[in-house]
Amino acid sequence: MAEPSEKARAKLLSLNEALESGAISRVRRIINSGLAPVDVAHLIESSPPRDRKLLWDLVDKEIEGEVLQYLSDDIQSQFLSDMSAAEVADMTADLDADDVADMLQQLPERVIQEVLDSMDHQDRSRLEAILGYPEDSAGGLMNTDTITIRPDITLDVVLRYLRRHQSLPDMTDNLLVVNRQSEFIGVLPIRKLLVSDPQQTVREVMSTGGVTVIQATQHETEVAKLFERHDLVSAPVVDANGILLGRITIDDVVDVIRETADHSLMSMAGLDEDEDTFAPALKTARRRAVWLGINLITAFIASAVIGMFDKTIQQVVALAVLMPIVASMGGIAGSQVLTLVIRGQALGHLSSANFTWLFNRELIVAALNGVLWAIVIAIITWLWFGDEMIAVIIAAAIIINLMAAAVTGAALPQILKSQGIDPALAGGVILTTVTDVVGFMSFLGLATLFYL
Amino acid sequence: MAEPSEKARAKLLSLNEALESGAISRVRRIINSGLAPVDVAHLIESSPPRDRKLLWDLVDKEIEGEVLQYLSDDIQSQFLSDMSAAEVADMTADLDADDVADMLQQLPERVIQEVLDSMDHQDRSRLEAILGYPEDSAGGLMNTDTITIRPDITLDVVLRYLRRHQSLPDMTDNLLVVNRQSEFIGVLPIRKLLVSDPQQTVREVMSTGGVTVIQATQHETEVAKLFERHDLVSAPVVDANGILLGRITIDDVVDVIRETADHSLMSMAGLDEDEDTFAPALKTARRRAVWLGINLITAFIASAVIGMFDKTIQQVVALAVLMPIVASMGGIAGSQVLTLVIRGQALGHLSSANFTWLFNRELIVAALNGVLWAIVIAIITWLWFGDEMIAVIIAAAIIINLMAAAVTGAALPQILKSQGIDPALAGGVILTTVTDVVGFMSFLGLATLFYL
Repeated sequence: MAEPSEKARAKLLSLNEALESGAISRVRRIINSGLAPVDVAHLIESSPPRDRKLLWDLVDKEIEGEVLQYLSDDIQSQFLSDMSAAEVADMTADLDADDVADMLQQLPERVIQEVLDSMDHQDRSRLEAILGYPEDSAGGLMNTDTITIRPDITLDVVLRYLRRHQSLPDMTDNLLVVNRQSEFIGVLPIRKLLVSDPQQTVREVMSTGGVTVIQATQHETEVAKLFERHDLVSAPVVDANGILLGRITIDDVVDVIRETADHSLMSMAGLDEDEDTFAPALKTARRRAVWLGINLITAFIASAVIGMFDKTIQQVVALAVLMPIVASMGGIAGSQVLTLVIRGQALGHLSSANFTWLFNRELIVAALNGVLWAIVIAIITWLWFGDEMIAVIIAAAIIINLMAAAVTGAALPQILKSQGIDPALAGGVILTTVTDVVGFMSFLGLATLFYL
Repeated sequence: MAEPSEKARAKLLSLNEALESGAISRVRRIINSGLAPVDVAHLIESSPPRDRKLLWDLVDKEIEGEVLQYLSDDIQSQFLSDMSAAEVADMTADLDADDVADMLQQLPERVIQEVLDSMDHQDRSRLEAILGYPEDSAGGLMNTDTITIRPDITLDVVLRYLRRHQSLPDMTDNLLVVNRQSEFIGVLPIRKLLVSDPQQTVREVMSTGGVTVIQATQHETEVAKLFERHDLVSAPVVDANGILLGRITIDDVVDVIRETADHSLMSMAGLDEDEDTFAPALKTARRRAVWLGINLITAFIASAVIGMFDKTIQQVVALAVLMPIVASMGGIAGSQVLTLVIRGQALGHLSSANFTWLFNRELIVAALNGVLWAIVIAIITWLWFGDEMIAVIIAAAIIINLMAAAVTGAALPQILKSQGIDPALAGGVILTTVTDVVGFMSFLGLATLFYL
C-alpha cells in the first residue's frame, strides 16, 4: 500500500485539476517529473477508477514495474490482465523476486506459467522457489538475493569477495554462512565483519546461537512477531532440511504488520483489509450488501423479541420510547470488552490461565458501571415520565444487559477463535444480537411481569 | 508492547500454575531460565495486577532495565514509582538513550531531574538532548549512538577507525558524514563502503542526494511514513540548523506503526491504545464510564425522537416492533463508510479533489443497497404484519436512512479532522446519533403523516 508525502499530496491536487481539464500532456509531465515510483503508485491509488487506467498508460516504461509493485492487489490484477505474458516478464525483470511473485499471484495459473516461460532461466527458477509457497507464508515473503559464504575462509577473503560486487542487496546486515550442502549454519554480521581482525576465519567470528532462523512454511504473522521481538533487519529462511532458501527483510515485514493491524479495524465493519478506497460503486455495493444482509437478520431477531411484548407496549408507550437505551448501552459496553479481548488475543496476552481473571474483572466492571448508569437512567426516566416503576424496571434491565454484554464480549472471541472463526469479523454481529435480545427481553419482560 | 512466542506461551501456562500454587522458587526459576527480557515482559503483561509486582521483584537485577523497556507505559510507571532515583539511574545505565527517555517520561518532572543528576555526565547530556523533544516527535524517538565520520578521509581510514570499535551500534547500515560544525552532509552506506576502492575518500563515495533526513520536530507518524516509503533501516535526525543530533532506527519505527494502527481500532470502541488488558477493575470501570456516559446522551436523543411520536406508536404497535431495524441498518451502513474513510485518511488517499468522487460513489452505493434491502424488508414486513402501508413506509425510511448514513459516514471524518478532532474516537458516536435520529424520525414521521 502506497503512503503519501507532502510533495505527493500537492501533486495529487494539481493532477486532479489537470485530469479534470483533460490536459493529458500536463498529466504526463506531472507523473514523470522525477516522482518516485511509490508516489506515482499513490497518485494512481488516490484516483477514481476512470482516471487510473489513463494514468497507468502515461507512466514511463522504465518505472512501470516498480510502480505496479506498490499498488494494491485489486489494481494490480486489473492492470496485469491487460498485458501479455511477455510484457509482464519484461516489466518485472528488474524487480525483487518476492515482489514479482506477489504480483503474479494476481494472475490466473495459466498466465503465470506463460510469464515464467518468457523469463530467463535464473529469474524463472528464483520465482518458482517462491511461488511454491503460499503467499502468506515465509516462503512467499522471502527474497532469493542472498550473499552466502563458506565458514572456512578468512574475513580478508570475504572483504575481497564483497568488493567484486557492484553493490550489495538492500538491507544486507548479515552474510549467510552455508556448508557445501547449502545448509544454513550461521550468520556473519556486517557489524562484526567490520570490527574483527581480517585474519580470522568466518567460523571464528560468525554467530550460530541466538540466530533467528525462519522456516519457509511459517505464517507471515509469526514471521512479523519474530522480527518485532528480536529487532531484526533480515532473517534467513530455510526448508525442512535446513537448506538455505533465501531471506526476509524488514521492509516486507513492515507491510505484513500494517496489513495485519488493518485487518481487525476493517473486519469489525465487515470490510476487507484489501478494500480499495476508490473501488467502483457496483463492486462496493455488492460487497457491502452481504454485511447489511447479515445484520438485517440480527435486526429482525431483535424485532421478533419486541413483537412478543406488543400488548405491553400498547398499554405503556413509554417502554417503546425507552427500550433503545437498554439495547444501546449493552451494545456499547459489550463492544468495549470485545475490542479489548480481540486486541489481547492479537498481542498474545490471553491464555486459559489468565482468562478467568479477565472474565471476573469484566463482570465487576459491568456491575460497577451497570449500577452507576442504572441510577442515572432511572433518575432521568423518573423525571421524564414521573413513573417510579418504569424507572426501577429500566435500572434493572440496564444492569442485566451490561452483565450479559460483559460475559458475551469476553467469552465470544475466545469461543470463535477456538472454532477457527475470525472474532473481529463475526464478534460484533453476534454481540449485538445478544445485547439487543437481552436488552429488549429484560426491559419489556420485567415490565410485563411487574407493571401490568 | 511485548509480543508472544510459542515458548513464552507455554511458560505463561506453567507460570500461572506456579503462581496459583504459591511456589515462588519455581516462579523465579521460570522467569530467570534464560528467557529473553522481551518474554519476561510478556509474562508480566499477561499477568493480573496482583501477580505483576511479585513477578517484577523476582526478575534478575541485570535484566530489569531491559524488561522494563518492553512493558507498557501504565506498568512502567507503576514499577518506577516504587524505585529511588539512584536505582532508576543504575538500572537504565546500559540501555539505549531513547528507550530510557521513554521510560523517564512516565515519571514526575522532579523525579526525572533526580534521575538525571544520578547519571554520569555523558549519559545525562545524551538523555537531555532527547528529553528536550516531545515523546511523539522524531527527537523523542531518536538515539544518539551514531558513528560519524569526516568527508575528507579515505575509506581505508574509515575501515581502520571502525576496527577500533568493540562493536557497532545495532542497525548501523550507514555511517553519518558531518563537517567540522557537526552539520550533517551525507551518508556512507556500509553497502558502498564494502564494495568500494579503499583509496577513495568518503566524499567521493558518500550519498548526498536522495538521503532521507529527518527534522527533530517532525511527528513520529510522519517519520513512520518516510521509513515505509523509502524502505529505510535508519535515518539521521537534524535540528533546524542542520546539526546532526542522532538517528532513528526501524525497530522503534515498527513500534510507532503498530501503536498508530492500534489507535484507530481501540478509539472506535472508546478505548485508549495504551489500555492495559489486565488493568484493575476500578480503573477500568472509571475509564469506560466516560464512554458509556457519552453514548447515553446519544441514546436519550434517540428516545426523545421516539417520544415525539408516542401517540402514533400507541395506535400502531407494529411501528415500535420495526423501528430498531431502520436505525440499525443505518448504523451498520454508516459505520462501513466511516471506517473506510478513516482508513483512507490514515493512508493519505483522500484529498479535496477526489473526495467528491468518493462522496458520490457512497451515495450511489447507499441508493443501490437502500433499494435492495428496502424491498427485502418491505416484503418481510408485509408477510409479518399483512399491512402494505407499513411495508411501503419502512422501505422509504430505510432508503432515507442509508442515504443519511452515507453522507454522514463520508463527510464526518473530513469535518472532524479539519477541526482537529480524532475521527476514530468521535466519529462512531456522532454517526450513531445521526442514524438513530434520522431512522426513527423518518419511519415514525412518515407513519404519522401517511398512516394515521
